[in-house]
Formats: sequence, structure tokens, C-alpha cells
Amino acid sequence: MRPLKLDPDRLFPAEPRTRDIARALYTEIGGLPIVSPHGHTDPAWFATDAPFANATELLLAPDHYIFRMLYSQGVSLDALGVRSRAGTPATDPREAWRTFAAHYHLFRGTPSRLWLDHVFAEVLGIEVALDPASADHYFDTINTALATPGYRPRALFERFGIEFLATTEGADDPLDHHKRIRESGWGGRVVSTYRPDAVIDAEHEGFAAALERFGALTGEDVMTWDGYLAAHRRRRADFRALGATATDHGHASARTANLSRAESAALFDRIVTGRFEAGESELFRAQMLTEMAKMSVEDGMVMQIHPGSFRNHNAALFASHGRDKGADIPMRADFVGALKPMLDVVGNERDLTIILFTLDETTYARELAPLAGHYPCLRLGPAWWFHDSPEGMRRFREMTTETAGFYNTVGFNDDTRAFLSIPARHDVARRVDCAFLARLVAEGQIADWEAAELAHELTVGLVRRAYKLGEPA
Amino acid sequence: MRPLKLDPDRLFPAEPRTRDIARALYTEIGGLPIVSPHGHTDPAWFATDAPFANATELLLAPDHYIFRMLYSQGVSLDALGVRSRAGTPATDPREAWRTFAAHYHLFRGTPSRLWLDHVFAEVLGIEVALDPASADHYFDTINTALATPGYRPRALFERFGIEFLATTEGADDPLDHHKRIRESGWGGRVVSTYRPDAVIDAEHEGFAAALERFGALTGEDVMTWDGYLAAHRRRRADFRALGATATDHGHASARTANLSRAESAALFDRIVTGRFEAGESELFRAQMLTEMAKMSVEDGMVMQIHPGSFRNHNAALFASHGRDKGADIPMRADFVGALKPMLDVVGNERDLTIILFTLDETTYARELAPLAGHYPCLRLGPAWWFHDSPEGMRRFREMTTETAGFYNTVGFNDDTRAFLSIPARHDVARRVDCAFLARLVAEGQIADWEAAELAHELTVGLVRRAYKLGEPA
Amino acid sequence: MRPLKLDPDRLFPAEPRTRDIARALYTEIGGLPIVSPHGHTDPAWFATDAPFANATELLLAPDHYIFRMLYSQGVSLDALGVRSRAGTPATDPREAWRTFAAHYHLFRGTPSRLWLDHVFAEVLGIEVALDPASADHYFDTINTALATPGYRPRALFERFGIEFLATTEGADDPLDHHKRIRESGWGGRVVSTYRPDAVIDAEHEGFAAALERFGALTGEDVMTWDGYLAAHRRRRADFRALGATATDHGHASARTANLSRAESAALFDRIVTGRFEAGESELFRAQMLTEMAKMSVEDGMVMQIHPGSFRNHNAALFASHGRDKGADIPMRADFVGALKPMLDVVGNERDLTIILFTLDETTYARELAPLAGHYPCLRLGPAWWFHDSPEGMRRFREMTTETAGFYNTVGFNDDTRAFLSIPARHDVARRVDCAFLARLVAEGQIADWEAAELAHELTVGLVRRAYKLGEPA
Repeated sequence: MRPLKLDPDRLFPAEPRTRDIARALYTEIGGLPIVSPHGHTDPAWFATDAPFANATELLLAPDHYIFRMLYSQGVSLDALGVRSRAGTPATDPREAWRTFAAHYHLFRGTPSRLWLDHVFAEVLGIEVALDPASADHYFDTINTALATPGYRPRALFERFGIEFLATTEGADDPLDHHKRIRESGWGGRVVSTYRPDAVIDAEHEGFAAALERFGALTGEDVMTWDGYLAAHRRRRADFRALGATATDHGHASARTANLSRAESAALFDRIVTGRFEAGESELFRAQMLTEMAKMSVEDGMVMQIHPGSFRNHNAALFASHGRDKGADIPMRADFVGALKPMLDVVGNERDLTIILFTLDETTYARELAPLAGHYPCLRLGPAWWFHDSPEGMRRFREMTTETAGFYNTVGFNDDTRAFLSIPARHDVARRVDCAFLARLVAEGQIADWEAAELAHELTVGLVRRAYKLGEPA
Repeated sequence: MRPLKLDPDRLFPAEPRTRDIARALYTEIGGLPIVSPHGHTDPAWFATDAPFANATELLLAPDHYIFRMLYSQGVSLDALGVRSRAGTPATDPREAWRTFAAHYHLFRGTPSRLWLDHVFAEVLGIEVALDPASADHYFDTINTALATPGYRPRALFERFGIEFLATTEGADDPLDHHKRIRESGWGGRVVSTYRPDAVIDAEHEGFAAALERFGALTGEDVMTWDGYLAAHRRRRADFRALGATATDHGHASARTANLSRAESAALFDRIVTGRFEAGESELFRAQMLTEMAKMSVEDGMVMQIHPGSFRNHNAALFASHGRDKGADIPMRADFVGALKPMLDVVGNERDLTIILFTLDETTYARELAPLAGHYPCLRLGPAWWFHDSPEGMRRFREMTTETAGFYNTVGFNDDTRAFLSIPARHDVARRVDCAFLARLVAEGQIADWEAAELAHELTVGLVRRAYKLGEPA
Repeated sequence: MRPLKLDPDRLFPAEPRTRDIARALYTEIGGLPIVSPHGHTDPAWFATDAPFANATELLLAPDHYIFRMLYSQGVSLDALGVRSRAGTPATDPREAWRTFAAHYHLFRGTPSRLWLDHVFAEVLGIEVALDPASADHYFDTINTALATPGYRPRALFERFGIEFLATTEGADDPLDHHKRIRESGWGGRVVSTYRPDAVIDAEHEGFAAALERFGALTGEDVMTWDGYLAAHRRRRADFRALGATATDHGHASARTANLSRAESAALFDRIVTGRFEAGESELFRAQMLTEMAKMSVEDGMVMQIHPGSFRNHNAALFASHGRDKGADIPMRADFVGALKPMLDVVGNERDLTIILFTLDETTYARELAPLAGHYPCLRLGPAWWFHDSPEGMRRFREMTTETAGFYNTVGFNDDTRAFLSIPARHDVARRVDCAFLARLVAEGQIADWEAAELAHELTVGLVRRAYKLGEPA
């Protein structure tokens, strides 16, 4: 078996002087607390603190980065234990893990490889590389560790040095796990994020049911425009009461609208009664971004917009396995025209923060950096999803910094449900940022003390301020 | 206070061998004359040679790169002394400068920072870095300098080693300042550029008034298609008589048209009488690019096309402050379909030069380099506006050179109204080009003597030939 | 005259440690056999083994990379001996070569320069650089060499170490040269590729004539939908019988369709009778991609899709000189929506291979890598045409690897009719891949032994498997 050993200088530039600068910067910020303002971990983990099941259920079956790559090379999702609409397949977890190990070379050059090796080496203490020969050793070692107290969710949270962790829940979620976390007396700061997509997207298959729960939870008549808006206000208040500071919106496009009250009410009537024409569901989502922005002006919640994913592109797989099975594909995005109606309403608000994400990197230099480098309410979210990777982050900095600067960005989001990988993901981001800053120093653009200040800002300063988290105690 | 000291090797690659090559190339071309064929300095400066007012009015209030960044972080334009439709605000220039100094860290990693530090250190001789503690020292030092003869416009022009400087005036401009420069006997070569946008764009708020002045200046009946074209020919001749060699066209898109004479005349009638339908003003602008190209075949003027900016995106700011307040945002561009009608008419003209600029970098490798690498009349303008930056220039070379080569490009444009920054901007371009060439040498793609030839071409050779400036005396 | 000497470390990174890693990788794979699964050499060369004519006819007149660059700088195609619709111009080949030599500096920084210098130095043994002074020496040396047995097509094929070479022929081609190669007993593996564009594209000027030959060759009634499909099946079998493993489709867009049998038949009737409306010819091409994919599921042929070129953009040049004269320009491409109808039919087929190419690099990270990193049938072709260059290949790896990995790519295609440049082109690709892998090693992302495995895969492993070529004897 081959040894597993992380290069302490990984992701730093090879050129020795630049590498030394990067290493010096990283030495100062590599160990700072983790601030994770956007992600998809399960609050039940921290509410119950129950142990994780096994290597396959924890690391393999839920990770779409992993199973999509194996699927692309002909491995069936059943063989990996991935749940379908028919339920969890009767796959032996050890066999699934062996299949994964046999294909681990597919991840060479991908961020998954960086994250997984970090999890294996740093979180799980494994000292050999993953391959067919070590598959059983991995499976047994991981399962043994997961059964110990040190690998329970709260223990890992503390060991990881997490200062803040946001999960994401729908507008129709009762937030029971978050209440239980609060009431438990545990000191970990885990809060929710208000994500109302399911009650806004009339094309979502769960729209009617979500709307019904939305009405039931709020006591509002959500079939009227006024009642519907009031219900949003109530739920936003519920989320805030449990510590949430942000909302999140995952629309297909960044399109916004600025309809009159009467137009909005009439459109809403058609939407909730299902009598809308082609394009009207998108117009409604567009109007709702503006409504959410106006509510954020009122209540101070930070607004995140994540547009541009063609969800469930693989029709047969969606039929058999449902959502989130690695078949979401980015699309070309427009922000300049799309955001204008909303910006006409709130664009010059100085206390509002709207964080923009994209899956279309061509918008970084052309649209997003110029917009964020002008409008007081706009900030740029980090490189997202397929671009949450060393090259993706490097391109993000290279294509946004010269126009938007560093201070119109908001630090890193791990955006993950893979809890064990959170330190790995933040570590990659910190290293890539230090590498970028080191190049600016080596090429005489900024001084070393400025790079040190910036490294601190990119790691904890900007995220705390952008998401209104306050300074740590 | 911290020292201000420019790294003599700034913007060169960190790798020592490549850096040595870059430095050697730069040593040969760093001191060559400045040829500035496209910019927005005020010809009144050189006509009157009056001293500049103060640091804030010269360096801060007119520079949209600077005030847009501060505005994006919540600073009001009033606080910076930026003029609004109501006039220049009653802001104390010293207070405005202090506000700027307090936010100078926002520019880390931006080209503004490089340009400003160069201006401070090289043009103004300041030896400490700008920050709140040094703000007053800066303000006083700059103002004292500006009152001396050595900082008058003509003295700076000569000190900067400017061989050629083009300003930009509208078709309705009487060119009085340029006449006065000519008549003054001063040896500086300052000429205008013919920019007829205001008499071509029927959606421009000043269209009717500009058209009226256009008719008055030329004595042509500009309300008829023939008279309108004749007026353009007259004004082009007026500009040429004062040394101009080029025209410039800042349309929203690169769309061109190839209408018949009868169609053009009928469209023009609708345009000038305001009876045009949606899309017809764009069609008219499209046809006018082709008309301008045909006139360039006749009179030899070099044509510059600068498409792709969504002007005045911020509605409230446009209402309060008017144009050019940092709210112009790039849009996605198309050249392949858009230029075809014009190229069908003039594309194979060998003595015509049409220089294309873009704000959409995705067109560099996909459209512009293939077009310029084929059509005899096409050349590529340098990285423009938001992309006039080290990374932007590097991407320009990386994405155009392999298909269009170096010889279908035209050297650098500073495109600036910030007169003091002209040497800084050309210096950045020269350093980035030397860095790019050094990499080609270090990686064995070209010989060192070829890089030296190319460095000279990119600095002075290509621009003199593309803009038909002749060799210097 | 200046010496011509290829840098043995060309295209490796300048940084010494990374360069050492790259060199070590290249040492292992630089000499591996050439596998060329997609190109445009003339099978008549290998059928007849007749000597090539002269330097101009072999290297200059047929190479659109070369003559487009000279044309862009005002050189006429006649002066270079490029054939027009009127026939081959009466240009003295020596004079044409001198014109080329006088403009050789235009290629600095382009891949043509790399390929040509490699051909001159390695294939032809020339020891001085090409410039006006050496033009005649080149012309005479090359012509002398071409008259010797060692420069005949089969001798060069063997000297180049070509393991497999695919040409491209139309559906209406009788494949006589390929039959003659087979029957000759020569051991070189030269096969065809089935490219049915001319019988699919109703807008192609040769559509009717090609369709007639298609019917004559197959004996099918190609004016009926069933007969037309049967004819495709027959010709695919003909191509396979002569060793072909792949088809190729060069449509303007990647659009696919999934019409019913009745809809397809009705559309076909309109297409072959010329009674189709605007857009229907594109719809037919779209449907035919899906039909071809279904046939590939049946017969195992690998499908290549090369979309996105605006053919014959220069109207006057097309009128005078016809196709393939350097006036094809890339366009913006869409794959996410365009491919969905076809992927709805065949996307989850594990034994089908569809290789996607693009001229729009913005689709690499946004669309192609996510699609290929999910669908089992999809693979990514290498950087193509204008992007078949060091920077183009580097961008391809940087923008696809993190999402699609290396194993969803298929190695290199030279895609060339310039036979002498085949070793040069593969050498550039191998060097750029080694440079990319070396950086991953130097930055601690993969181990050196993994890079060595990957270098072998990128050179011969992936291409042999993707194109179903089998292992060499």
C-alpha cells in the first residue's frame, strides 16, 4: 500500500520566493476559526448528536461530486448505495466502498480528491492511500472511528474550530431541529437560512404542498397576495429568532421584476390557482426576488442569489432517482439586464447586502465585478459549486479583483452537506487565496503587510461583516 | 507613515530567469515615447496651459475608477466632490481627499492602485504611502506642485515624453481648442478624434440639439439623408485638417447593417422626425457604422468601434448625477453576426483599418482573433476599460496571440481623462507585454531577439502604423 | 542566416523544479506511437504513395492557418498559390514561398510557428531559420527532399511512428483509396471516418448531388425516410468494413431533436423536396444527430460532434475562392439545451461514446465538463482548431479537469491535412500535457507516479479506448 501524506505546501505556487510568501501568509491564517455562512449540513446531526452510520452512508452515497463522476464512467448509482425513488438500494456498504476505491483514480486533478485525502488523513488519521488494496482497511477504520464519541457531530464541530455554521431550510420547515439545538444548551452556533424557493417556484413539483404547509405554519391566508407576503414576513422573523441572518434564492435565472402592486397581485392569483401562462412562473420568481430584497431592507437579512443551474437535466435519472443526483448542469447567465428591475428599487441602499453567485464564469469580469464595484448593496459570493476548486477560485480572483477589489467579496462558502470535508474545503480556499496574494506581493503590486491584512479579511473579516455575524465572543 | 516605493521589477514574473528576460526587454523599451492614439483628456488644458486646480478636482472627482469603488462601499459621491446635475457639491476638497485616503485600501489588487502610486511617486515625488495619516501631507504637497510651472499641462506633456495625443470630440464640436493649440505654435502633437455618436444615436437625450449644431456647423441640410451624409464628410475633413487620423464609435452593440440607399434614406426620415419604431434606432446606428466605414475607405480615417457598454445602468444615479458616474456596465457582445453586413461591403479593403474593442473577453479567442486573423481591414484594439489592467492585458495576449498574432494588434490605448496617469498606464502595459514576451522566450517559443523586436512593435511600431501617424521627426 | 534550433525544453514551465518534473514525464511518453483518430489527410497519398510536389503545394497553399494570417495582413491568396474557383493561380511556387518567408514573423507566438519550425528542423533537417535570406535555400532543400524515397507518404508514415490514422470521407464517397490501401498489403493502419454532413445539410450547395450519389452507392431509395436511414446504415457498415470506428458531424450548432417517427418522415419529405421553411433544415440536422446516435448504439461507432463554426463568413472570398479559405469563424455555442433531446434518448447508454468538441471555450467549465462528468455516453474531445495551441490546451485542462477529470477526455486529435506537421502537433500536445501534470505534482495535488500514469493515458491510453481501437499488436 502507498502512503497517504498531504504536502504541507500544497496549492502554493512552485516558484520558491512566491511559495515562501504564500506559506508565511498561510501560517498566520490557516488556523483561524471556520466561519461557514452557507451550507447544507443536516441540523438533526447537531440536535441529536447521534453517531454517523458508516463510511458509505456518510462519505459516499450523499456526495454528488463523487457519485456523478463514477456514474459518468459507467458505474450504476445502485452499486454506490445511492438512494432512488424506490428507496435505498440493497447494496452492501462494504461492496459500495470497494467500488469507490477501485475508481478513486478518476478524481486525480479534481477538488474532490483534495477534500477526500484531507478528510482521510487529517480527520480520520488514515496513513495509506485509497486504492483497491486499502479499501477494506479504510472501510473498517472509518466505521470504527465513527462509533467513538470523538466522531459525533458536536465533537467534530468543536474539533473543526467552527465559529458559525448556517444550514438551509425551506419556508415550510418548522425549524424543530434548530429549536432543539438552541434549547440543548450546547454552545455551537448553528443557525438556519431562509430559502423560500419551494413556495415561490410554481413549476416545482412540491409547490402546492409547500404552500399549504406555509399557510399552516403562519396562520396567514397564503392564497392572497397580501397574506402570502405577510407569511414570508412571519417566517423570516421565525428564522431570525433562531439566529438566522440570511436568505437564499436558487432560481433558474437571475431575472428580477418590478411590477406594480396591482400587477403583482393579479400575477399571484394566476400562479396560486395554476392558471398561469408560459413565462409567468418565471416572472413571478423575478418579482419575488424584488419582494425579498424589499423585505431585507426592512428586516436586515442578507440576501443570497444563486442562479443558473438547469436542474435534473437527465430525464430518465430524474424519473428513477429524483433530485440532486449529479445531473444539474450550469447555464449561461445574464445579470446586467436581469438584475436591473430589482436594483432600480434597492440598488442604492447602503445597509442592504445582496450576495451574487454564478455558475457562468464569463460573468465575473464582464458583469459581476462591474456591478459589485458600483452598487452599494451588491457583494460577490465566492466561486461556487463546479468552480469551488483551486483553478475555479484562482479564476474568480483574477477576474474580479481588478474591478471589484477584495472588499466587495465575502470570503468563502463551503456550501456542503459533506460535514467531514468542511475543514478541507476551507483549507483549500485559504491556500488558494494565500497563493494569489503571494503573487501580488512577488510581482510588486501590494506590500507584504497588506497581503497579511487581506488574508485575514478573506478568511474571517469579510464573511463576518457581510453576513452580519458580529465579532466572536 | 509608511514609505511609498515602487518595485522596479513590478509586474514581471517572479520566476528569476523569466524575470531577467522581462527586465532586459523592458530596459530597452520602457523609456520610448508615449503614443496615445485614443483618450479623453481635455484639449482646453493644452490650449490654455492653465494650472490644474487642486488634488481633489484633478485626481479624485473626475476619475470614475476611483469614485465608483468608494460608492460601492457606501461613500456618497457628494463626499468626494463629484459633480451632480445640481452642480459641484459644496464639499471641502481637503475633506474629500481625506475620505479618499481613508478608503485607499479598497484599491489593493486593482490597476487604480498601480496608476495612483505611480502618479504619487513618479509624477509628484511623494515618498510616503497614502493613508489617513498622510492625507493632509498629500493634499498640500500636490496642491503646491500644481501651482508651479512644471505641473502645467504643456510642461507635463513634454516631461511625459508624449509623441502623440488624441482627444475625442463630437461631430457637433467646433474644435476651437484644437485650433488654438495649432495656432499657438506649441510643438506638442495633440489632435482630435471624430466621434459622431450624439448625431447618430436617436435615443441619446441630446440627439436633436446635437443634430442642430451639426447642421449649423456644416451648412448642410442635415434633415435629409444626403445632406446628413455630406455633413459627416465635411466634419471628417474638418477633423483631418487639424491632424485627426481616426474616428470612434461607442455604440451599445457591434451591430452593422447593409441597407440599400432607398432603405437608408427612408429609415433616416423616420429617425430624424422621431417616428421610428422599437429597434429602428439600433438599425440606424448599425447602418451608420457601414456608412462610416465607406467614408473611411474614401478619406483614409482609421475607424475605432467600442461596443458593449450598458450606459447609465443605475437609474436613480443617472437622474441625480447624469452620465459617466461609474454606472456603465459591460454586456455580452456578438461580433461574428453583427459585423458581417459591414464586412460584406468593406471587409477585403487592404488600406482600410477598423480597430475593434470589446468589454466581453469571451469574444477574444472565439470571435475577434479569428476575425482579425482573416480580414485585411480588421485589427484588435488593446484590453479596454475594465480590462485595462495587468490580468486583463495578460488574458488579452493569451487569448488573441495564437490566432491573430501580434501584428494584428495596435499597441496600447490609455483611454483616459486622468492626464497625470498617462505615463503610469503606458508603463503598466509595457511591463505586462514584456512579461508575456519573456514567458514566450523562457518557454522556447520565440528567440530573445524576436521578443526585443516585438517589444518595440507593441510599444511604438504597431500604434504608429495602425493609426497612420507616420514615424516621428 | 540565423540558426534554427528547437529548444529541447520548449513549452515546459520556466520554474526549474516544475520544468524538471515536466521533462521527466515527457521523457517517458514523448516517443510513444502517434494515434491520430481524427484528421483530414488525403487517403490517395497512402494509396498511391506518390511523391509530394513541392514546398509551396505541400506546406503553404493548402494550409489555411498559414494563408489566412498572410491574407489578414494584405497578402493576396493568388500570391501564395492558393486555388480559387477559377483554378490554381499561375503563381511561381518559388515566388509564393519567398512571399511566405518575408512574412514569417507574423507567426511569432502562434502554434503554426511551433509546428513549422518542428517540420523544418525535425522532418526536413533544415538548420537555419526561415526568413527572406533563407527562402530559396528552404525551397530548394525541401523540394530535393520530397523527391527522395524517404519523403514518400508511406515512408513518412512509418518514420513518424503512426500507429493509427483516420481520414474523413463523406457518405457519398466510394472509399476507393481506402480499398486500395487495404488491398496493397501495406501495414499502415489508415482508415476512414463516416462524415455524412453533405447528405444531411439541406443548405449545403452540394446537397442534391450528394444525395443522388448516396442513393446510387447504396441502392436505397434515399428519397424516402426509411430508405434514407437504410442507406446510412449501409454506408456505416461499408466504412466499418474498411476499419472505420467513428462518425463525425460538423453542424453549425449542437442542436439535437427527438421527433416521432411520423414527424421525422414528414420533415424529411419537405427537406428532400426542397419545400422546407426557415428553421426546418436546422431541425432536420438536429434530428439526424439523434438518428446517428441511435445507430451508434446499434453498431458501436463512436460519434464525434464538432459544432459552432460560421462557415464562409467572407462573402466575396467565398464567391471567388469557395470553401475552406480561412474565413470560418467560431460562434457562441450552447450544449445544455441543445443536446438534451438526444441525451433523453441515449444519454444513459454505457457502451455508447459521443465525443464533444467546441470552438466556444466558455462552454468548457460551464457546460461540457459538467455534462461529461455526469452522462456515461459523453466524452470531451481535445482543444480544437483555433484552440489547438499551447494556451488553448492549457485552458482546456484548467477548465475541464476539476469537474470532468482526465478520464472523461480522449487524448489528442491533430485534425490536420498538413501531413508533415502531425508529429509536431502531437509533440506540442504531449509537452503541454506534461507541463500541466508537472504543475499538479509541484503544487502537491497528485503524486509523481500518478502523473506518469496520466501522461501515458493522455498520450495513448484514452484515445485507444475512446475510439475503440484496441491495443497495438
